[in-house]
Amino acid sequence: MDSWRSAIVDSGDGQIRYRGYDVTALMRGRTFTDTIFLLHQGRLPGEHERALLDAILIGGADHGSGAPSCAAARLALSGNRQSLSAAVAAGLLAVGDDHGGAGMGCMEMIAAGVGRAREEQISLEESAQRAVNEARAQGKRVPGFGHRVHTTDPRTAVLFGMARTGGVAADGIAFVEHLEKAVAAQVKPLPINIDGALAAVLHDLGFTPPFGRLVFLISRTAGLTAEVAEELAREKPMRIKIPVQYDGEPPRSLT
Amino acid sequence: MDSWRSAIVDSGDGQIRYRGYDVTALMRGRTFTDTIFLLHQGRLPGEHERALLDAILIGGADHGSGAPSCAAARLALSGNRQSLSAAVAAGLLAVGDDHGGAGMGCMEMIAAGVGRAREEQISLEESAQRAVNEARAQGKRVPGFGHRVHTTDPRTAVLFGMARTGGVAADGIAFVEHLEKAVAAQVKPLPINIDGALAAVLHDLGFTPPFGRLVFLISRTAGLTAEVAEELAREKPMRIKIPVQYDGEPPRSLT
Amino acid sequence: MDSWRSAIVDSGDGQIRYRGYDVTALMRGRTFTDTIFLLHQGRLPGEHERALLDAILIGGADHGSGAPSCAAARLALSGNRQSLSAAVAAGLLAVGDDHGGAGMGCMEMIAAGVGRAREEQISLEESAQRAVNEARAQGKRVPGFGHRVHTTDPRTAVLFGMARTGGVAADGIAFVEHLEKAVAAQVKPLPINIDGALAAVLHDLGFTPPFGRLVFLISRTAGLTAEVAEELAREKPMRIKIPVQYDGEPPRSLT
Amino acid sequence: MDSWRSAIVDSGDGQIRYRGYDVTALMRGRTFTDTIFLLHQGRLPGEHERALLDAILIGGADHGSGAPSCAAARLALSGNRQSLSAAVAAGLLAVGDDHGGAGMGCMEMIAAGVGRAREEQISLEESAQRAVNEARAQGKRVPGFGHRVHTTDPRTAVLFGMARTGGVAADGIAFVEHLEKAVAAQVKPLPINIDGALAAVLHDLGFTPPFGRLVFLISRTAGLTAEVAEELAREKPMRIKIPVQYDGEPPRSLT
Repeated sequence: MDSWRSAIVDSGDGQIRYRGYDVTALMRGRTFTDTIFLLHQGRLPGEHERALLDAILIGGADHGSGAPSCAAARLALSGNRQSLSAAVAAGLLAVGDDHGGAGMGCMEMIAAGVGRAREEQISLEESAQRAVNEARAQGKRVPGFGHRVHTTDPRTAVLFGMARTGGVAADGIAFVEHLEKAVAAQVKPLPINIDGALAAVLHDLGFTPPFGRLVFLISRTAGLTAEVAEELAREKPMRIKIPVQYDGEPPRSLT
Repeated sequence: MDSWRSAIVDSGDGQIRYRGYDVTALMRGRTFTDTIFLLHQGRLPGEHERALLDAILIGGADHGSGAPSCAAARLALSGNRQSLSAAVAAGLLAVGDDHGGAGMGCMEMIAAGVGRAREEQISLEESAQRAVNEARAQGKRVPGFGHRVHTTDPRTAVLFGMARTGGVAADGIAFVEHLEKAVAAQVKPLPINIDGALAAVLHDLGFTPPFGRLVFLISRTAGLTAEVAEELAREKPMRIKIPVQYDGEPPRSLT
Repeated sequence: MDSWRSAIVDSGDGQIRYRGYDVTALMRGRTFTDTIFLLHQGRLPGEHERALLDAILIGGADHGSGAPSCAAARLALSGNRQSLSAAVAAGLLAVGDDHGGAGMGCMEMIAAGVGRAREEQISLEESAQRAVNEARAQGKRVPGFGHRVHTTDPRTAVLFGMARTGGVAADGIAFVEHLEKAVAAQVKPLPINIDGALAAVLHDLGFTPPFGRLVFLISRTAGLTAEVAEELAREKPMRIKIPVQYDGEPPRSLT
Repeated sequence: MDSWRSAIVDSGDGQIRYRGYDVTALMRGRTFTDTIFLLHQGRLPGEHERALLDAILIGGADHGSGAPSCAAARLALSGNRQSLSAAVAAGLLAVGDDHGGAGMGCMEMIAAGVGRAREEQISLEESAQRAVNEARAQGKRVPGFGHRVHTTDPRTAVLFGMARTGGVAADGIAFVEHLEKAVAAQVKPLPINIDGALAAVLHDLGFTPPFGRLVFLISRTAGLTAEVAEELAREKPMRIKIPVQYDGEPPRSLT
């Protein structure tokens, strides 16, 4: 078998380097969030960049035990207390386009829309209007808007405020704010939710779209581990019995 | 990298063999259950052996959508409809010692108890009494007895009846029935549940203990796929909201 | 919380029914494959239908330890021998559009193409030609054709032969054979692979597209459990060390 | 169904609180590592505590693409590019007692040993000697010692140095250092590896044993997401073909 190749980690006896930096130097002077930035972008963040990534990672960590990811993790542990890894993994498997995953779709829309504005020499505003228009024509929702619990997501203003104060705000935030106006005009007023907000900021921090999904997986693992630890400490195995109403075939015999 | 080694599948251009048998020959004349037996034991089963493995696989396929495995699969799909594999995998992750997994522990107890009877030249009855005695001394439950729903598990009598009729019943069933008497005498009367019953039969069919867990994973995948298909066809994304009562710290401020 | 609803399993004290049939009656007289058919379609199969589903389940069970699904399962076990469920689940997570999953895409294409022939009153042949044409215009591959190992997949002829002999062959097989001709004419000659073959047959057996993915998950679980059992019995923990060539940043210091 | 209960998150319209703290306040002024500490311990860490948890999270993030967790994630993505969640989850499933998981076992040994010293009024040194003695009598390895790559793990000295400088070092580090001496005396000289080091420090930071496993899951998710992003960006689907040597039954026919 040919070797695989990777530009992330180099290690040998007594030496581990992430993207060229010695891991012990990072441990001594940097934060976990710096390291996440480094592993994904190949460079260390500046102070404001790190603060924004911290804010994003904090914002998605948990939203209550009843969310699909947290509930799936607790259910897995309820039947299988032999593997904490299995419970946390079960929780991550509930993350997708409908749960914690709109950031990636929104980042794809931002990358496409900002690129188009440049290529076709149109304004970001016009590019955003066309994007909403095209999504509607295809019967698709614009990812990153609306929330089933929050009428205004409190986390959005925090992220955008920090990005502006830190001088990080650029095309990503501008484009998403144009999307918001276009959605309001063409569909109905819908707030930018945490997925839309983090997508805008991550674009401005230089990340590519897959990171919009991956950052949520890192963030939510913090919450899932806490949920699993609480389930393990406070509850018994097999305590969960979800009530089900049977509405299928009546009893019948085989012959 | 050195090659891995395996005695299961051999394949090349236009040829796939399972344990030496051409896959197309198996497809033409054998059943999936034959193939499961073959992959795990390296030989094809006789008629009664196949019927027993079929019965075991049927018996564990599903027990209702609210069981941890099925509920975890549905929750995963609720958030992540992009990967049916992810939903089924989330369901399997809920399988462990407390859910669908007692068969392995019971098979280990049978293998140890039958082996000890042979080595120490004692009866299976005495070996079973000692096993229950030792489990109690260590504060452990005897795996394969009792059920939270069924006072008598209807599947046990079917398996034991088929094993006797088919001439398959041997030390495994005998040992588990001695365990049942010893549990009743030393603890309290508890029925042999499906896990205990399949453990006895699988021992008599020549399987090793890990198969007591693995057979349930195969069996339950049949049910999990049906649960996932129904969720996909009948329900909307994110329809599940498990109610949670917060009982932690009251609101507090950072400084 | 509102109850969930399900038409699959009804159970109570001493009673478990799948789609209305008592599980003990199924255990006594039916096969696991019958039960898979029943759980998914709500009815028991006829003899030829069962034989075909058996053949499909046998055909996908394993293709060698080095395939992504089997290798992922072995790697998971290599680090985590505490949970056989986790290893099997890791294997299933490698199943997607590129590995074992083309059946679902092909079934969607068949369902759309057969429906269109009916609605637009065109022949299946013309509908297949248009489908290939449209896939090419979108730069998409037609799912279910070609194989990286086999120039002719030996399993395809077996399935189609059994379907014809058993009187099950209908629009699904006809449509896929028209697809094959259209692919040969418009792209290049490519054999119908196992995914394309099972898609055709499953369509003719009355299954909906998601089953094209789910059936592979059931089938492959048989192989994954055998791979996991062999790894557990024959190999040591952490025996696998995949060689990696580092091609990233040279060593650098933090300041 | 009864509500579940949780002391972690409280949320309502426009409000999300972690352990009583408003999420927006945390986002504005705290780090992700602070939040991980808070979610698990219910209080925010001091400066030295945070630096230590950062160092632990950095130290376990990645160790090369060929480790079972990273390789399993890449294999899963190789077959299933539709779900990044599935690939990261597959990676976590490889984490267990043999890979990244010795921290939990070592924390259990520390908690037991420190508790015993207190109860039996013996020194930590004597308690450590007895623990090693008992592990040897049971044929068990002492978790947290030795490494297959590093003769001296460079991360251990960093963690212990920071713990001493920050005034955090207490019974946990003392006990593990006594274990090291007892292992050297009774078995052979083996270095304290990263698992043993983090176990000692996490004990002194007030965490319970399950966190020894859970912290690695959080840490490794940072690396797994980077591995998955690189695989997605640089490699083709199904590029991985692990070579396998077949050593099973020769070809045979069914009848």
